[in-house]
Amino acid sequence: MAYVNDNYLKLKAGYLFPEIGRRVKAFAAANPNAKIIRMGIGDVTEPLAPAVIAAMHKAVDDQAKRESFQGYGDEQGYGFLREAIAKNDFQARGCDIAADEVFVSDGSKCDTGNILDIFGEQNVIAVTDPVYPVYVDTNVMAGHTGAANEKGEYAGLVYLPTTAENNFIAPLPSKKVDIIYLCYPNNPTGVVASKETLTKWVEYAKANGAVIFFDAAYEAYITDPAIPHSIYEIPGAREVAIEFRSFSKTAGFTGTRCAFTVVPKSLIGKARDGSNVEIYKLWNRRHTTKFNGVSYITQRGAEAVYSAEGKPQVRATIDFYMANAKIIRENLGSLGLKIYGGVNAPYVWVKTPGGMTSWDFFDKVLKECNVVVTPGSGFGASGEGYFRISAFNSRANVEEAMRRLREKIKA
Amino acid sequence: MAYVNDNYLKLKAGYLFPEIGRRVKAFAAANPNAKIIRMGIGDVTEPLAPAVIAAMHKAVDDQAKRESFQGYGDEQGYGFLREAIAKNDFQARGCDIAADEVFVSDGSKCDTGNILDIFGEQNVIAVTDPVYPVYVDTNVMAGHTGAANEKGEYAGLVYLPTTAENNFIAPLPSKKVDIIYLCYPNNPTGVVASKETLTKWVEYAKANGAVIFFDAAYEAYITDPAIPHSIYEIPGAREVAIEFRSFSKTAGFTGTRCAFTVVPKSLIGKARDGSNVEIYKLWNRRHTTKFNGVSYITQRGAEAVYSAEGKPQVRATIDFYMANAKIIRENLGSLGLKIYGGVNAPYVWVKTPGGMTSWDFFDKVLKECNVVVTPGSGFGASGEGYFRISAFNSRANVEEAMRRLREKIKA
Repeated sequence: MAYVNDNYLKLKAGYLFPEIGRRVKAFAAANPNAKIIRMGIGDVTEPLAPAVIAAMHKAVDDQAKRESFQGYGDEQGYGFLREAIAKNDFQARGCDIAADEVFVSDGSKCDTGNILDIFGEQNVIAVTDPVYPVYVDTNVMAGHTGAANEKGEYAGLVYLPTTAENNFIAPLPSKKVDIIYLCYPNNPTGVVASKETLTKWVEYAKANGAVIFFDAAYEAYITDPAIPHSIYEIPGAREVAIEFRSFSKTAGFTGTRCAFTVVPKSLIGKARDGSNVEIYKLWNRRHTTKFNGVSYITQRGAEAVYSAEGKPQVRATIDFYMANAKIIRENLGSLGLKIYGGVNAPYVWVKTPGGMTSWDFFDKVLKECNVVVTPGSGFGASGEGYFRISAFNSRANVEEAMRRLREKIKA
Repeated sequence: MAYVNDNYLKLKAGYLFPEIGRRVKAFAAANPNAKIIRMGIGDVTEPLAPAVIAAMHKAVDDQAKRESFQGYGDEQGYGFLREAIAKNDFQARGCDIAADEVFVSDGSKCDTGNILDIFGEQNVIAVTDPVYPVYVDTNVMAGHTGAANEKGEYAGLVYLPTTAENNFIAPLPSKKVDIIYLCYPNNPTGVVASKETLTKWVEYAKANGAVIFFDAAYEAYITDPAIPHSIYEIPGAREVAIEFRSFSKTAGFTGTRCAFTVVPKSLIGKARDGSNVEIYKLWNRRHTTKFNGVSYITQRGAEAVYSAEGKPQVRATIDFYMANAKIIRENLGSLGLKIYGGVNAPYVWVKTPGGMTSWDFFDKVLKECNVVVTPGSGFGASGEGYFRISAFNSRANVEEAMRRLREKIKA
């Protein structure tokens, strides 16, 4: 008799975004004339940069001719892309990261889930609250938790509440933990971590032999030059951190699929017998055994993000989204709502008016304004009473959504 | 202290193909003038079909304009591709498979590894021997085995030897098993399973509540009209089988990356408490949580494989490779070697001459002929004394490799 993985049965309801999708679909079906504006899921809207398009056309042509045809590439990614990443994203910022420590993949969602494969089940795992739901759900699936309570918190996970009181910066855990997920610029709150904050975490990890999973998918949105883009800007991070990066938000690759994970060779874990194990070797083994590399065409497109033509084009789109964020901040601020983020991140995190729950507010703005936001409670118990609004949209949609919110919403 | 997954430490040496790569690299470095012909790894060599190229150029252009830009698609794949797959690969053969039972992915290697996520650790798992190494290695990583013995067999796995005596057709297990991996047309032996063979397996699975993982990555190479392309051609298979398919070998997508997995809604597993669980729902949850869909551009390319222009183009390339297989069979046969496969599959499975071990023969042909074959023992203990030779190459390379083998190898 084939048995299933019972851990899946512990998962609560749907993953947040499918649940939003279901509610929006139901509303749209009942209100076919409603002009719904989606400010919920963090999906980009602007076309790919011309340099990326040109590079992908060329790569498609490469696949049309025997001489230039590309079959299986190295599972870890083509050298041309790994080199460009190491040079531009790390070495240019003074981070000591080599090309062969970069593992190209098809998405950070995949990587942040898959990384658990190489770690033991005995680790104590900390996540912030609110948090990107994938970190939690993949730990549940892997059997690292018990059941969920009525707030949706799973037994066995250490939750680090980030609230207005601590400026949404993850506090050090009171209980010793072995693995910590940190995401800065943060999804969903849009706040960033200073050098001091990250230094404190690197020191904690060093002192406790812990590993930090650092999700920097939104680093391109940092506008303040004092804020680190990579955890490897912090001395000692090579010994304690894995970093996740993505082209999804940096270069509009949500539908084109390319990301990467950095696993420094100096990162060491423990086997059960207490011996040291290079994490790099395990991830390399996983990546070559359970993954077969990213499309050559996509990798050529990603390479162009770093080209002389690509860089300013990609930057212009990010600036465009950040101008949207400014409009959102100004409008919601003018309503008297308490707002966070949106300065170094494409997300604005907002307190619901009048103490409404997140889902009640979600339903209200969907019904009254035909605008989709993301309910904060979908990101964790401490997100209750907040909503996330995304700057990824056309200017016309952002302005129209703000007009509707100004009309119907009062602090 | 962060602990690693100790199961990874049980893995023997490198994954087969990286090990071949290392030996070839070392030989090439020591013999820079050697004109090495790679007949080892099963990688395609011919360019993509013109219809696929045209579709991908158009899709790249879609990504260049706001109106047609595609961000996140459904994780399970675009409807246009799932429909084309269900219609052409299944319904056209009388298989009752719906589009929403098709999960588009970036590779069968990934899928055959990832599928284990949703099954319990208490299942008894059977693999053939020889076998595609990924099935075994991913079970080791998932902790479903004990340590390996000196032959490379892992404790806890049930090995089903396929040998010349049973025509390389997997025998039913003597011990009751819960999950069985079957691959037909087979990698590495190139043999196929008849309707009678598959019916026997479906009946076994039904009688034992087992699930069959059916890997049909090479189905497009079947030339005998009596041989089933899908396990769903067998009555009752919807209740017991998951099927893996890939565009890699069908349409030359090894470097372009697209595959799919079929999980019928009628497939049921057991929870620990004995209750029934729809496997479909678990895979859907895994796929939406730990995966973010395949590149839109790639999916448009895959769709074109099923177009009126694409079908004959793709078929012509397969016919070309199969003509290579015929040349290989004829040449090696003329040397008096015992050969199998290569009629309904792009692989020819050959007994080494003079009782040589697989790796000794590998080293000999690399050194004397500068030809790379795949050592049979790399696929399992019962593969010892065999080698696999691939039909994926240019005609000139195949002919030159055969000329060299004719010169140096005697049965």
